[in-house]
Amino acid sequence: MTGQCRPEQPIRNGAEYRQSLRDRNLDVYLFGERVAEPVDHPIIRPSINAMAATYDLAVEDPALATAHSSLIDGPVNRFLHITGSADDVVAQNMMQRRLGQITGTCFQRCVGMDAINTIFPITHEIDRERGTGYHRRFRAWVTGVQRLNLVVGGAMTDVKGDRSRSPSQQDDPDMYVRVVERRPDGVVIRGAKAHQTGAVNSHWLLIMPTMRMTAEDGDYAVVAAIPADAPGITYVYGRQSCDTRSMEGDLDVGNAGFAGQESLVLLDDVFVPNDHVFVDGEFEFAAPLVERFTGYHRRSYVCKSGVGDVLIGAAALVADYNGVPGVSHIRDKLAEMAHLNETIFATGIAASHRSIPTDAGNWEPDNLLANVCKQHVTRFPYEIGRLAQDLAGGAVVTLPSQQDLEHPGIGPLLVKYLKGREGVATEDRIRILRLIENMTLGRNAVGYLTESLHGAGSPQAQRIVIGRGIDIAAKKRLAARLAGIDETG
Amino acid sequence: MTGQCRPEQPIRNGAEYRQSLRDRNLDVYLFGERVAEPVDHPIIRPSINAMAATYDLAVEDPALATAHSSLIDGPVNRFLHITGSADDVVAQNMMQRRLGQITGTCFQRCVGMDAINTIFPITHEIDRERGTGYHRRFRAWVTGVQRLNLVVGGAMTDVKGDRSRSPSQQDDPDMYVRVVERRPDGVVIRGAKAHQTGAVNSHWLLIMPTMRMTAEDGDYAVVAAIPADAPGITYVYGRQSCDTRSMEGDLDVGNAGFAGQESLVLLDDVFVPNDHVFVDGEFEFAAPLVERFTGYHRRSYVCKSGVGDVLIGAAALVADYNGVPGVSHIRDKLAEMAHLNETIFATGIAASHRSIPTDAGNWEPDNLLANVCKQHVTRFPYEIGRLAQDLAGGAVVTLPSQQDLEHPGIGPLLVKYLKGREGVATEDRIRILRLIENMTLGRNAVGYLTESLHGAGSPQAQRIVIGRGIDIAAKKRLAARLAGIDETG
Amino acid sequence: MTGQCRPEQPIRNGAEYRQSLRDRNLDVYLFGERVAEPVDHPIIRPSINAMAATYDLAVEDPALATAHSSLIDGPVNRFLHITGSADDVVAQNMMQRRLGQITGTCFQRCVGMDAINTIFPITHEIDRERGTGYHRRFRAWVTGVQRLNLVVGGAMTDVKGDRSRSPSQQDDPDMYVRVVERRPDGVVIRGAKAHQTGAVNSHWLLIMPTMRMTAEDGDYAVVAAIPADAPGITYVYGRQSCDTRSMEGDLDVGNAGFAGQESLVLLDDVFVPNDHVFVDGEFEFAAPLVERFTGYHRRSYVCKSGVGDVLIGAAALVADYNGVPGVSHIRDKLAEMAHLNETIFATGIAASHRSIPTDAGNWEPDNLLANVCKQHVTRFPYEIGRLAQDLAGGAVVTLPSQQDLEHPGIGPLLVKYLKGREGVATEDRIRILRLIENMTLGRNAVGYLTESLHGAGSPQAQRIVIGRGIDIAAKKRLAARLAGIDETG
Amino acid sequence: MTGQCRPEQPIRNGAEYRQSLRDRNLDVYLFGERVAEPVDHPIIRPSINAMAATYDLAVEDPALATAHSSLIDGPVNRFLHITGSADDVVAQNMMQRRLGQITGTCFQRCVGMDAINTIFPITHEIDRERGTGYHRRFRAWVTGVQRLNLVVGGAMTDVKGDRSRSPSQQDDPDMYVRVVERRPDGVVIRGAKAHQTGAVNSHWLLIMPTMRMTAEDGDYAVVAAIPADAPGITYVYGRQSCDTRSMEGDLDVGNAGFAGQESLVLLDDVFVPNDHVFVDGEFEFAAPLVERFTGYHRRSYVCKSGVGDVLIGAAALVADYNGVPGVSHIRDKLAEMAHLNETIFATGIAASHRSIPTDAGNWEPDNLLANVCKQHVTRFPYEIGRLAQDLAGGAVVTLPSQQDLEHPGIGPLLVKYLKGREGVATEDRIRILRLIENMTLGRNAVGYLTESLHGAGSPQAQRIVIGRGIDIAAKKRLAARLAGIDETG
Repeated sequence: MTGQCRPEQPIRNGAEYRQSLRDRNLDVYLFGERVAEPVDHPIIRPSINAMAATYDLAVEDPALATAHSSLIDGPVNRFLHITGSADDVVAQNMMQRRLGQITGTCFQRCVGMDAINTIFPITHEIDRERGTGYHRRFRAWVTGVQRLNLVVGGAMTDVKGDRSRSPSQQDDPDMYVRVVERRPDGVVIRGAKAHQTGAVNSHWLLIMPTMRMTAEDGDYAVVAAIPADAPGITYVYGRQSCDTRSMEGDLDVGNAGFAGQESLVLLDDVFVPNDHVFVDGEFEFAAPLVERFTGYHRRSYVCKSGVGDVLIGAAALVADYNGVPGVSHIRDKLAEMAHLNETIFATGIAASHRSIPTDAGNWEPDNLLANVCKQHVTRFPYEIGRLAQDLAGGAVVTLPSQQDLEHPGIGPLLVKYLKGREGVATEDRIRILRLIENMTLGRNAVGYLTESLHGAGSPQAQRIVIGRGIDIAAKKRLAARLAGIDETG
Repeated sequence: MTGQCRPEQPIRNGAEYRQSLRDRNLDVYLFGERVAEPVDHPIIRPSINAMAATYDLAVEDPALATAHSSLIDGPVNRFLHITGSADDVVAQNMMQRRLGQITGTCFQRCVGMDAINTIFPITHEIDRERGTGYHRRFRAWVTGVQRLNLVVGGAMTDVKGDRSRSPSQQDDPDMYVRVVERRPDGVVIRGAKAHQTGAVNSHWLLIMPTMRMTAEDGDYAVVAAIPADAPGITYVYGRQSCDTRSMEGDLDVGNAGFAGQESLVLLDDVFVPNDHVFVDGEFEFAAPLVERFTGYHRRSYVCKSGVGDVLIGAAALVADYNGVPGVSHIRDKLAEMAHLNETIFATGIAASHRSIPTDAGNWEPDNLLANVCKQHVTRFPYEIGRLAQDLAGGAVVTLPSQQDLEHPGIGPLLVKYLKGREGVATEDRIRILRLIENMTLGRNAVGYLTESLHGAGSPQAQRIVIGRGIDIAAKKRLAARLAGIDETG
Repeated sequence: MTGQCRPEQPIRNGAEYRQSLRDRNLDVYLFGERVAEPVDHPIIRPSINAMAATYDLAVEDPALATAHSSLIDGPVNRFLHITGSADDVVAQNMMQRRLGQITGTCFQRCVGMDAINTIFPITHEIDRERGTGYHRRFRAWVTGVQRLNLVVGGAMTDVKGDRSRSPSQQDDPDMYVRVVERRPDGVVIRGAKAHQTGAVNSHWLLIMPTMRMTAEDGDYAVVAAIPADAPGITYVYGRQSCDTRSMEGDLDVGNAGFAGQESLVLLDDVFVPNDHVFVDGEFEFAAPLVERFTGYHRRSYVCKSGVGDVLIGAAALVADYNGVPGVSHIRDKLAEMAHLNETIFATGIAASHRSIPTDAGNWEPDNLLANVCKQHVTRFPYEIGRLAQDLAGGAVVTLPSQQDLEHPGIGPLLVKYLKGREGVATEDRIRILRLIENMTLGRNAVGYLTESLHGAGSPQAQRIVIGRGIDIAAKKRLAARLAGIDETG
Repeated sequence: MTGQCRPEQPIRNGAEYRQSLRDRNLDVYLFGERVAEPVDHPIIRPSINAMAATYDLAVEDPALATAHSSLIDGPVNRFLHITGSADDVVAQNMMQRRLGQITGTCFQRCVGMDAINTIFPITHEIDRERGTGYHRRFRAWVTGVQRLNLVVGGAMTDVKGDRSRSPSQQDDPDMYVRVVERRPDGVVIRGAKAHQTGAVNSHWLLIMPTMRMTAEDGDYAVVAAIPADAPGITYVYGRQSCDTRSMEGDLDVGNAGFAGQESLVLLDDVFVPNDHVFVDGEFEFAAPLVERFTGYHRRSYVCKSGVGDVLIGAAALVADYNGVPGVSHIRDKLAEMAHLNETIFATGIAASHRSIPTDAGNWEPDNLLANVCKQHVTRFPYEIGRLAQDLAGGAVVTLPSQQDLEHPGIGPLLVKYLKGREGVATEDRIRILRLIENMTLGRNAVGYLTESLHGAGSPQAQRIVIGRGIDIAAKKRLAARLAGIDETG
């Protein structure tokens, strides 16, 4: 029996979304124990809140976070929308920045959005070249997902073993997810997907290959949708910096409401019925699939400019609380932070604005510029974070605990001595410092920094695409012509 | 008598444009001598070629370089077009990049384009608030310029004297251009405009104030159009690095065809009839005029990404000629150059894409992103240039002269010893090295580097706009909310 | 009664040092509770280990970590040595780098070393100008400290309140430590010192002013030594990122042995007998004291190059474990990390090498170069950390917990799927990833990153010293002469 | 007949040095013509002035620019000294910085200094391993050079042809200098050395191989001293940006007194008597020779910090002349320029301070730190130059010519309009702007920028040495130990 994805009614808001995650009996492990109900776990809850924000924003600002879907002839959450224009692609970025501002962290729903918009044209192309029927299957599945307004987790990154070897060359054949059995009614897959963003908070996982493949790697060329609670799936929750502070109280965590989520997803012979298999063995399409997905996903990192907005605001606030908001070097640092942050935004917007239609009818961003955007994302949040810590001062890493502040004996002394300028409560100053700690060293530094570095591919992956994408031959001709070199000779 | 701007027939291409510049009897000084006919001067000619390319591109690719003008109800060169949509603003960038690729230098026509699109809404606003009739006058003048397809030079930067003092505080009142006499039929202006790009190659100069002004500075708040050959104007041609190589031969100059042009324009009591006066004394509008113009003009520096394309191509070509195109650090440097270059492009495109309409009906780019674009332009060409020199090797600054190469005795030895890989002519290797020298140290380094730094305002000017433009209060609220700070308290 | 600093016998090694900290009955608060015995607390213990390494190194490598003291005519730990030559100052750096390598964190003993070498000449100068007897007192106290081989914590940074106001302008006069009462036999001080490195692990605290002072701030100009267990002192232990992992087990913490320590030290009317007061009211000497101390201390950050060695090694090891040690971009990133790391080392060494003698007879480093060194320290560890995370891959922030790895059900699956190349134990791969997490996001990121930013003064403080220190007038003369400008005119 | 190097009496100062270059009948080509007397050529003269400064400084400041030579038991110019201590190596850097300040350009004498200190130990080692007698020969030759106080040009860089092939693999065997004939009394060499700094201004050229060699490359492994006027040598003078301005007048050139010099040296079967052959065929020593020489020479680029001092001074002066010296962003940029400039100095000093003795008795710098120093030199002058242009403003590239300023009609207007603040002569403002142009785009930009990039090896060469030099295995062990990894298993 396959897992049965709930709910049966469309999810209308964040509260209903939270409810939809209950009672699924997922195998989720954290600190060596199976979590009885992830929705109620204090470490997991903030990540669910972040995902829920994608539902609530669609209610509060439908122009920003919904779109009209031709598949269901009605409005859908923009995260589930098959883009119909360049403006649709740009609109995703606007929504992403806003959600970054609202949550200050990774809200996890972009991978699925980008995966849907990747598999849509890829299945169309495979069908055209191979006479398969994947595209129709995929449309049917997407239509169902849109109707119920579900979360789709895109599962791409394999664990990879020895990075110098291809999937089929590994000592252990399970280092990349593969089809281990083909039955008349479906396939059985095995392996593990690492760094899975929001998987525990998803209704469906969309399995995809992670890299270029050769004929020997055919069994690894598989795209399939599986319900998050399908038998055989185990989730091992990844530790994040300062994760346990979420269990201690609200002050020290910095951002008590929201957090990201990464887990390792073990697939122990999971059965997928044929209707949910969208690629099986067409290895030549693994490379274009990955390039398309990463093109889409790399400019999705515009979300980090929303997170950056929060951090810039926090840095400005702490300068204000310290009594020195107008000092020239502080103002200059805020301008530099904004300059870097807007560069992430602008390069993403440019990539989306210059989208082109696929043969399947959806639109996809400019691949070169999408990679330029992501390359900046691997650098600038670190510099923005460093500048935020600069403006915060040393207190960002030396503050006493919430319990000390609440201690009847030393608490009042701490309130006295940790005060900033007149008119600012010491607790507020501490709160903003803890937020900066959260975003530069703590739970949300994981999403703002490290995940910015590696999500959608590590920096070198972008450099390779940029190097390939610039039409160097045309540039050489431009130079030769101006230099007076006769190239016909 | 005012100057009489020719031609009387519309200019249709670069050749006609060149012809239109002849016999104007301009007072142009270079090396202490009045230039008899600028069109024939070997140092000036390449700058005219670059401007002419803006005419020829409109013939070759009208979709890129022309637009439909509602003022004349017909096609106009895009450089003279009053933008009617965000797409129009984006299209300017596409045209600019292409012209940068074609010329490898500054083609000088953007200032006028951006000035027209600035004065258009500003006059509209002054009229609305002050009941003046500037906007109608301006439309009439633009209509005439469009009909004849003329070059408009935008003249903004004053010589400034002591930079710590306002115009009216200077010891010498002529340090900023001002109205020295008001007559019934017009005004008389005096002063000097520095760093005037393409002024000698223009048909009209559009005088504008250079900075925020106060009531005391009223006489300095003047916008007016004057024919380039109006009595009282003297042009002193600015020296550029390696300018005299253009007089020596074609090989050593690197880019024999194209160059930029800067001059100092002395205005010695130039009379302007009322029809060509568009602001006179409304000092409060100087600041918004400058901010709007710089917003427009700063994202026009997308042209430098076209110039960057040439330099990247040159660097790739020299690596190829040296026999080492595939070496990993060389490929990585080319990718880095492209990454920086595309960032200039993308941030400009994003600024243009996010244009908004003015009350006067034309569109103007996002000011924050336009400044982000320009800020990158003040940094990245220097790094791209450094990397190009890195790939070029030391020969870029130690090559012998063309005359040595042509010397019957040592010439053949030079051909032998300066050869790169098999199959590449030594002369071609030298030509590409000279192009890189031209763009990083020589004539076109002026435009690619220094003018990128200071054109449309020096780096600090952008930082101030960025710092002001980011709505820091909103960002503070985002941070406070996530930190759990009650701001209502 | 003043506190009584133990021990009574010289401390000979790390074990004796640990013992010396026991039974002192310090008021140390952590998580809202008074710590019964800091030496036994799992969060505090790693910081004591780091300090203990300064004792053990002196045993293992006396040439590196001891010196001959003329005060006691015998060997002393180099951290207590009054420098007698430029080589002595350089030798401090060599010892610091080695201890950074051994501990991977802040070993806390440098502040005292640098403070001793600052107060030594400052008291000499005050005596000379004011006829006081501070220098003799100070020598006597240092002699005693050297005899017993104690840890001196240098306590400089006040809590500061409103940063835009001087000490005497604050609403609350206690925002800077000050003398609140003068008695015949001593003074009483009140206030708080923030970000106190290793204070709980010290035997003595050497109180110093934190900034330039005016006549109004006279009561704040106080230098005094107080035993760490003096009545009236309370320590509030600062929270560090991931601090509680030290209480969970050894695997997830990354570096189980060593950590830094920061605390807030509350001084509630602490009495200091006259023999331990070294400045009292000589406010004019606050500025030179701070400049000298920071000059000394800023080049002490050479220690971070030792910590950087560990992080470079960790990054190289994880690339090796992943099977890709020889890939060109990885090798290039390791070279870049080393380049940055050696720059910290080299600029510190240069500052120390160019030391000059003070009138008191000890040597102090070149102030300009010391600030150049520290300025790099505020930037490069962040970039080195980013590159380390780049080489680590996403797993650095998504690994499961130690308990999951030890779980009988999922543990073996995790060992299977988290494996790297053949021949490397999965646990070892996890260990090195956790070390990188520890140093870039976790406990020791506090010392390697944030403390590098703010310790010994925030970045702007160094920029001001650099700007003042470069003799700009002399540089102007160089330029004027070459430009042919006659400056005598 | 071999060339006869003059003079016969020791050169005592710059004037005598200039005289020593006369009447040598060198074959020097420039602009296709043989230069009758290089000493009198206006383009060459400034480069001779720069070299002459090395003589005059030895007179004016013997402590800085001379040393006691044991070879002649008397004082020698420090550029000819075989170092006898680490202090000697540091002293070279101090002298180099000073000469950079005096000349604002490349004074050309370092290559020989570093070459002498490289060949000295290399010949010692070859003799020890091969039983040859090179070292004695070399000492004898150096002794003679010291006696007469001559200039030695170090000639290393071959023209290289196809960079992907070794010397013996080239289509044309002359792409690297080689021995084409061995006679009883000496060898005959052929080939060309590119980018030869100061060759025309030298008395001797010391030929060295340019890279690692194999057995097949044996004929290319040659070290030999040849008089600059030896038969068969032809010099082709390299063009520099703005070189001809030196022929126009003094104002536009920016730095009328001093310039660098690069030429291509053609060796057309030059005979070298055995006494001047120091390596012939010992190919295994080519790699250590190059590594040693580059180690020595890379930290010699400390000279650029002296040139940087001039440029910082010029930028400060122009800000002063413009009336805005105290503006915060200007002061901050000056501090940044100084920070970068002092980093070059400090890393060089550290490399020299950590010198170690060779078996031959001279001292050589720390190779790792020397490469760190040079790596900074390939980056920071570009950034310092960019910041100098930033402070200079646009006028740095748009100034009129000297002839325009002297024109009776427009000259006075130019003096009026190009004035800065009160009290500063317009001409002085122009002079300092021209100096900045000279150093960032003009003649001395060649030395300050491009030659900083490629001299002593291009950036990638340093990265390779840094990558190899950091003992990565030791760093791995540090990390493994702290991570709790048992490496013995």
